[in-house]
Amino acid sequence: MRILVVGATGTIGREVTLALSDRHEVISASHSRSPLKVDLASPQSIKDLFAAVGKVDAVVSTAGHATFRPLLSLTDEDFSISLHNKLMGQVNLVRYGVEAVNKGGSFTLSGGILSRSPMPGSTAVSMVNAGLEGFARAAALELPRGIRVNVIAPGWVRETLLALNMDPSPGAPADIVAQSYVYAVEGKMNGQILDVVVKRQ
Amino acid sequence: MRILVVGATGTIGREVTLALSDRHEVISASHSRSPLKVDLASPQSIKDLFAAVGKVDAVVSTAGHATFRPLLSLTDEDFSISLHNKLMGQVNLVRYGVEAVNKGGSFTLSGGILSRSPMPGSTAVSMVNAGLEGFARAAALELPRGIRVNVIAPGWVRETLLALNMDPSPGAPADIVAQSYVYAVEGKMNGQILDVVVKRQ
Repeated sequence: MRILVVGATGTIGREVTLALSDRHEVISASHSRSPLKVDLASPQSIKDLFAAVGKVDAVVSTAGHATFRPLLSLTDEDFSISLHNKLMGQVNLVRYGVEAVNKGGSFTLSGGILSRSPMPGSTAVSMVNAGLEGFARAAALELPRGIRVNVIAPGWVRETLLALNMDPSPGAPADIVAQSYVYAVEGKMNGQILDVVVKRQ
Repeated sequence: MRILVVGATGTIGREVTLALSDRHEVISASHSRSPLKVDLASPQSIKDLFAAVGKVDAVVSTAGHATFRPLLSLTDEDFSISLHNKLMGQVNLVRYGVEAVNKGGSFTLSGGILSRSPMPGSTAVSMVNAGLEGFARAAALELPRGIRVNVIAPGWVRETLLALNMDPSPGAPADIVAQSYVYAVEGKMNGQILDVVVKRQ
């Protein structure tokens, strides 16, 4: 398959790219560190990306920003950025990308388990992750030409916890999380939310 | 209790107002047909509403627009209106209203079961309904002074189906749906999503 990975230089995106590259042609895009650049918050940037890439069999997104901050400190701008980047950015990958995806292809987007297992500070993140799940469940009913859409909902990632100087033990290693993306790309599921939660000894 | 009902003149809002008025003081607001007017899509309008109303014990919203349209016909504007009205409008009722709500009070918002049971045409609606659920589950962890927030997720409403010249039999009567709002206002639940689905003979 010819697969576009958006967010290819991130913690999860690197591992997804690595895992898919074994047996697929991967085209990497990211906000700033790939040759192909895309700003998810900009509809025109997404349209330009698909114009540059041409036809693909799958689009994987491991990108999208939402703001983690206490509820009463979240500003109008925090909500706006979260909605336009992680939510509408990925929604627009599907809307603007559908014509670029071949018959039977797929979109695999990134949410997170804060959608259903919130914590203090996660209100804007939980909102956009849950919205993305609602989008995918519904869009799955209407995408043309057998195109599928699924959301991977990772919990904590070990490498992220280490980078934050936090206890890494509740985290799933990024290469394990990446397997869920491979599973969604290569499988037949549609409209599904795949939780990735690994509790390690 | 002193209760602000936003969307008080709608199909569900009328029945909620009626059901609460028995034993509470209800202040009615709506987009155009109440003495107190509010435009959910306008942050300033929501701030003006709370400035006019003063302190309350509960805020109920039966308001909010999202666009029902086939996925590939939904425009950027359709998504924007849906996000700013039904989702952020109700999110902002909580954010801007929290200081107006007395200790132990509550917010009761309106989503809908399309969040989890989508149908063709529901993509934008499913997205905002699911986003609202994610918001409420998370915000419930952080609201101050014991203030609660819950979402009522009605299925089809009988009166709405009749108005659309559709078979009303899958619908729950609006006065039955209204009881879920009363239950959320008068109860102790927090961060809950209350499905209202009535299958009638």
